[in-house]
Parts: sequence; C-alpha cells; structure tokens
Amino acid sequence: MKISFPLIVINFKTYSQASGRKGLELAKTAEKVWKETGICVAVAPQLTDLMFIAQQVEVPVFSQHVDDVSPGAHTGHVTLEAIKDAGAIGTLLNHSERRLRIDVIDSIVKRAKELNLLTLVCANTAEVSAAVAALYPDMIAIEPPELIGTGIPVSRAKPEIVTKTVDLVKKVNPEAKILTGAGISSGEDVEAAIKLGTVGVLVASGVVKARDWYSAIMDLVRPLSK
Amino acid sequence: MKISFPLIVINFKTYSQASGRKGLELAKTAEKVWKETGICVAVAPQLTDLMFIAQQVEVPVFSQHVDDVSPGAHTGHVTLEAIKDAGAIGTLLNHSERRLRIDVIDSIVKRAKELNLLTLVCANTAEVSAAVAALYPDMIAIEPPELIGTGIPVSRAKPEIVTKTVDLVKKVNPEAKILTGAGISSGEDVEAAIKLGTVGVLVASGVVKARDWYSAIMDLVRPLSK
Amino acid sequence: MKISFPLIVINFKTYSQASGRKGLELAKTAEKVWKETGICVAVAPQLTDLMFIAQQVEVPVFSQHVDDVSPGAHTGHVTLEAIKDAGAIGTLLNHSERRLRIDVIDSIVKRAKELNLLTLVCANTAEVSAAVAALYPDMIAIEPPELIGTGIPVSRAKPEIVTKTVDLVKKVNPEAKILTGAGISSGEDVEAAIKLGTVGVLVASGVVKARDWYSAIMDLVRPLSK
Amino acid sequence: MKISFPLIVINFKTYSQASGRKGLELAKTAEKVWKETGICVAVAPQLTDLMFIAQQVEVPVFSQHVDDVSPGAHTGHVTLEAIKDAGAIGTLLNHSERRLRIDVIDSIVKRAKELNLLTLVCANTAEVSAAVAALYPDMIAIEPPELIGTGIPVSRAKPEIVTKTVDLVKKVNPEAKILTGAGISSGEDVEAAIKLGTVGVLVASGVVKARDWYSAIMDLVRPLSK
Repeated sequence: MKISFPLIVINFKTYSQASGRKGLELAKTAEKVWKETGICVAVAPQLTDLMFIAQQVEVPVFSQHVDDVSPGAHTGHVTLEAIKDAGAIGTLLNHSERRLRIDVIDSIVKRAKELNLLTLVCANTAEVSAAVAALYPDMIAIEPPELIGTGIPVSRAKPEIVTKTVDLVKKVNPEAKILTGAGISSGEDVEAAIKLGTVGVLVASGVVKARDWYSAIMDLVRPLSK
Repeated sequence: MKISFPLIVINFKTYSQASGRKGLELAKTAEKVWKETGICVAVAPQLTDLMFIAQQVEVPVFSQHVDDVSPGAHTGHVTLEAIKDAGAIGTLLNHSERRLRIDVIDSIVKRAKELNLLTLVCANTAEVSAAVAALYPDMIAIEPPELIGTGIPVSRAKPEIVTKTVDLVKKVNPEAKILTGAGISSGEDVEAAIKLGTVGVLVASGVVKARDWYSAIMDLVRPLSK
Repeated sequence: MKISFPLIVINFKTYSQASGRKGLELAKTAEKVWKETGICVAVAPQLTDLMFIAQQVEVPVFSQHVDDVSPGAHTGHVTLEAIKDAGAIGTLLNHSERRLRIDVIDSIVKRAKELNLLTLVCANTAEVSAAVAALYPDMIAIEPPELIGTGIPVSRAKPEIVTKTVDLVKKVNPEAKILTGAGISSGEDVEAAIKLGTVGVLVASGVVKARDWYSAIMDLVRPLSK
Repeated sequence: MKISFPLIVINFKTYSQASGRKGLELAKTAEKVWKETGICVAVAPQLTDLMFIAQQVEVPVFSQHVDDVSPGAHTGHVTLEAIKDAGAIGTLLNHSERRLRIDVIDSIVKRAKELNLLTLVCANTAEVSAAVAALYPDMIAIEPPELIGTGIPVSRAKPEIVTKTVDLVKKVNPEAKILTGAGISSGEDVEAAIKLGTVGVLVASGVVKARDWYSAIMDLVRPLSK
C-alpha cells in the first residue's frame, strides 16, 4: 500500500513559501516527521516542481491537478501518465480552486485506476461529496470553501457538515475514505476530524505559512501517534 | 541575453516520448546540438518536468503555459513565479492546444516583463498575430492549427500566411520577432521560414517523435549554421 | 404538476431547422400532439428564442442551459430567474455539448428548487448518472455521447448502459426519474426506453431534422398512448 | 445603416430590473427617446429575451454574447445565426463579465461580417483595445473593469485610459469606432467621452437601475442632441 491511515496531506498550492527549492525543503520536512512518527504525511507540490521533488523524497507525492487528456498533442496540460513518470502516486482533483466537470472527474478516476494511481477528490458540500462517492475515487475530501485559508477548522466551525458528509457518502459507498479539509492547523483539529468519522486531513496554509514547518507538522501528527 | 536568433524552440507537448527522464534526455540532446553549432535551441518540457529538467540543462527552458494568477491559494495552477523558481527563462502562451483569453495574455505579458521572463505567444491567423503584436510579447509564433502535427510545413503549404503575418505584425510593431510553427520537420522548412521573414521555428512532433533526436535537431539547425 | 410521465423532451439545440420563427412552429407542433394524445411533450428551444416561444405555447418549455449566477452584473449569462421570467418551467443541465462542473450542478439544482423550477440533468455514463442522482435533480437523462445524433438508439445499441444506469441511480435515489437519450427517433425506441425502466426520452435531431415534425413526434408518442 | 453615431448602447446584463417583460419596457423607453431626439439608442437585452424584445422594438438590438459555434448540435449555445433570426443587428463580445479567447474573437468577428452582423468588442486596457483593433470589429468599447457599476465614469476618473486607448487603437486602425464604457450615468459623462475622441458610450447600471428610465436615457442623450 502506498499510503496509510490516518493520513495527512499537505497541499503546497502555489504559495511562494513552498515554491521550487523551498518546496523540496518542505517535502523533506514532511518526510522527517513520517520517519520519526510512522504517521503517513503526503505532499502535493506545485505542478512545475512535481518531478523535481518526487525524485528526492520517500513520502507519497500527489499532483495538485491533472487534465483529462492522454499523452500526445496537448501543450500545457498535465496527464496522469506524466505525474506517474514524475514519481507521484496519485492526484488531488476538483479542489475548490480548480473545480472540474462531473464527466471529467469520472473519466480521470477511471483512467487513474487503470494506471494504478490514487485519486483524492475534493468536494464543497455534503451532496457533492456523495455525488463524488458514486464515482468511486480512492479518497474524498470535504472542504467548505468559505473556511479554506481562514485557520478556522471545519471540524470546529461546522462539524455538522462533516457529519452529514460522512452520512451521505457512506450511504452511496460504505467503504469510502473521507478526509477533512479547510481551516485545519492544529493537532486538535486533526483529532476532531478523526472523531467525526474521517480518516485524515488535507491542509495547506496551516502548514505552508507556518514559521516552523517541522513543529507545525508535528503538531498535526501528535494526536495520531499517541 | 538569454536567447539568440535564429532560434529553434522544441515543444515536448505531453508526448510520452519526452515525458520524465526521457524529456531530460531530449533536453540534453538539444544542449549538445547547441554546444556543437552555437545555434540557440530552446526546450519546452512538460509542466510537471519543468524544474527537474531546467535544473539539469544549460539550454533555455520555456514553460508550455502559465495561468494568470499570482503566488498564493491557487491549487493546480502554474504561476510565472513558479516557472522562474524552476529555472525557466520564459513561457509559451496561447498555443492552439491551450488558447487564452485576450485580457489574460495582456496581463501575463505585462507581469512577465516585470519578472524578466520572456513570452512567446502563439497565434492561429495573421490577424490574431497582429492583435498579439499590440500586446508586445517578446516573440510571436504563427501556427495554422490545421497543419500542426502533419509534417506539412506551413512555410511550404501556406507561405502566404507567414508573409501576411509578417506584414500585419510589422505594421503594429516593426520590432516584433516572429517564429514559424506547424508542420516543421526539416532544415529546408527552417530555411524557408527564415526567408519568409521570421527569425526561427517552433517544432514539436517533428523532433519529439523522430527516431534519432540528435539527427533530427541537427537537420533543423544545419541551414542556420552555414 | 407541470409535467407528466411518460415524457418526451425535444431539444432544439442550435439547429437552423428550429431557429427563431421555425422554432415557434416546432413548439406549436409539439403542442398539437400533446393536445391530441394527452402525452406530455416538452420543448427546449434555443436560448435566444426562449421567451418568444414560451409566451406563445402551452406545452412545458425548458431552457437548454443556465449559468450558476444570480441576477445582476453578469453580461451574456443565463440565470434561473431569467428563464422563469421567460416562461420556462425548468432547464436541461450538463448536456454533453454543455458540460458543467459538479459543484455548479449542485448549486443550480438547489437554487432551482427554491425557485420552483425543474432540473433535467444529463449524464454520459451510469456512474455519472448515479453521481447526479446524489444531487437530487428532478430528472436525469442518460445519454452516451457517442450515440448522440446517430439515429442509433441507446436502447437498442447499448441497452445495458440504460439498465446499469437505472440500477446505480436507484441505489442512490430510489425515487429518481430517468429519461433515455441519444439516437432516439422512433416509437420503437421510446417503447424500449420505457421497458428498460426509464420514464421518457430526450430527443433532438430525430425530431428537429425530420421532414414532417408532426409525424415524427406522433411516431414517438404512439406506443405511449396505446 | 443600422446604427448612427453618436451612439448610446444600453446593456441590460442580467439585472432583474430589466428581465423579461420589464426588459421589453426598457427597450420601448429607449425607442421613445430615439424617436424624440433622433439620437441612436441601442439595447442589449438578456439572452433569453432577445427574440421576444427584438421582434417588438425598432431600435437596434444587440446580443450580449455569442459563442463561436455554427448552427447544429450545440445545446445551450448562442450562434450568430440565432441572434440574426431573433432580429438582432449585432453583438457585444468580450465584456469583462464574459471574456473570450483571442482566436474566438477573431473567428466571430470574421463570421459576423459574412452574416452582415455588427460586432462591438469590449476591452479592459488600452493595449487590449489595440489588439482588438487588429481584428477589425465594427466597434471597440474601452471599459476598465474596476469602474464598472461604480457610477464613477472612466471619462472623469481615468481620462488618460481613454486617451491612450484612442491613440493606440488609431495607430492600428485609424478608422476604428471607439465607445467609452464603465461608470457612465450622466450627460456630462457622455459629453466627456465624446471630447476624448470616442463616438459613444456603453452603459448598464446607470440606466437599468435608475428609478425613471426615460429621464435617465434623456439625460445621457441631451448633450448629443444640442
């Protein structure tokens, strides 16, 4: 298995704090925490840094996005095959900053399975999460967009969204793995996310913008490694 | 100066033949030709390979595309700052496989100048080329989409499109640097492109799909290094 | 109730045969068949003809598409409020020629309910149909895009897609109303669609391009009015 | 000639104040002012109201947008042929709320000429205006998006943008007809726009949201009819 649960996924977005060589450094820090604690910490670097970083770390690397195109004449696009060649084990899809068409998610999820790549599909509401569940991705992340980047964790501000998501998703696919996203920045948030029935978290600014990456990631991991 | 004319730009698109480590090998081959001939051969690798390749070659590296966003919360996008951090010297824009809005081209060209990055904007018609010229990018490539990937060079099939492009563009900006694209695969095509008043070529399948990259690039460069 | 089942929905697309005044004539023909047979025949005219036609016929009128924006500063968009003011009772969404993001479908379906407008969401695969079902639109149309416009009915060429769609959708929402689309042109096709567990059909070229609209629609309706 | 200069174009956007029957009433008011003053007042109603309104007024009617598709299987799109059948004489393109790709503008402008339809292309900067001029639309409207809907006229807040636009556009096409948009609401604004070298204005909220449409439009027209 390429990943294990509970799972922490760090999305670097296009933050300057984690661009290029700094992104590599952040990925190395995630690797250090994983080695010290055994908790799975995955990273999703900038698209342009993907191979550069994936070739130099042992933690699971995700792409932030892929396009629904096959290898060939598709200038400026990102294929599943390209991220696999780069060393990624899977991809985020449908992040609130990069929403996708429903048929495109279906198509990419199916092709990713054939290529043995993991898909982590984001959703903004409980209903969209349930819809996504019907496409059978490997993981679903519920992220109310209004909380993204606020530092206010969804698990505290709107726990009922997470609960409703778990309910609706499990009805469609009882085996679905759900992550909690949006506003996550502390171990307490992670603990709450797990208690609400999800199996991990998707974080971005809470880690990327922290002054001390090692402490920030360790803080997230702490309640999981008790 | 980061580039010199005549200029050959090799677009790797998302061809499997130039993905990941194979892309690095193609970029190294371009570098070899440049060192042997002194003719500037630039490469535009897959987005996900950009930093991996740019860190390991001395030839000019272009991104295939950038989005009109600044560093920050933009999951799955490509910023000008990211390609600069990756080691690229500029970017293709508005390729026929990745067309852009007119205001977006204007915005990216302006921001690229501030960041000291080069822009090479593709255009499908003489009129669009002239429109692009009014935005003052560093280079314009005229590429009739119906000839892309055919092996039939625009310089032979439709030389009047290139001539008209040069005419219309020069009226808007007499200093504009124009490249010829679409169907280019031989030194003869490059020679024709230069005779028609352009300063180089944009090639893709003609090189990427060639059995012997070194011979294919050398063949393009030959008439320029006489 | 604004519509009744079995239901025939005629999508005018942007066919010249049903543009402007000709579109009104086609809608009037649908109305005639409905009055003569009692079978519900709804029409989806071109966007620009929507109010012109909806104000002059009694059959249910659907929009072909709406955007996910509210009334206000949204030049060139179509709001739910606009189609309601125009006299439509609902809208098609996510047609294969106008696919939508998953969060956009969720948002429009929810807002349509508030405005008492019906939503008929198209889907290209059984899995996407099930995903759509989790968003609880009023109707779902399964339309394999490869059969659209071919005259080869999905109910004959790929009945297993319809059966699988009914299966997967009913698991998510047992009350869901499913229509069969793609390649429908005869009463036989409609009969097959009903037997496969769907409650009507979505047709376009099969009617719009017919020489005699009245006969074409009557032919579709015949097996339903036995 | 379908229009005359100076020209006032009223964009209804998707404002509820000008939706459906209210849109017809606004178009009728524009017609009244035109008949009383002889000044050309054109209207751009909501897409879904286009034919309904165009069939009932004599003032020039523009579409707010068209897609770059021909009549046929294009559900949910707006063709040039459809707006012509509806009775429009032309279309706005590339409004800041509905930006288009540069190749799409080129294609639509060329096809509109063949169909004898007028194009009025919006631009957000002087450079984009010059780029658009190279595509030879019938009219160009300079509208700095930051002033749209503010009631602060560009002609007062940033007259240098209008002046620069006129300069750059005339270099590309000395015959170009330029309109001033963004923040226009009074006759004084219109007067300023004319003095800066443009031939009319594009207004929206300044008229649509006015309590008394007749007074609002008359106020715009007054300095032109002296």
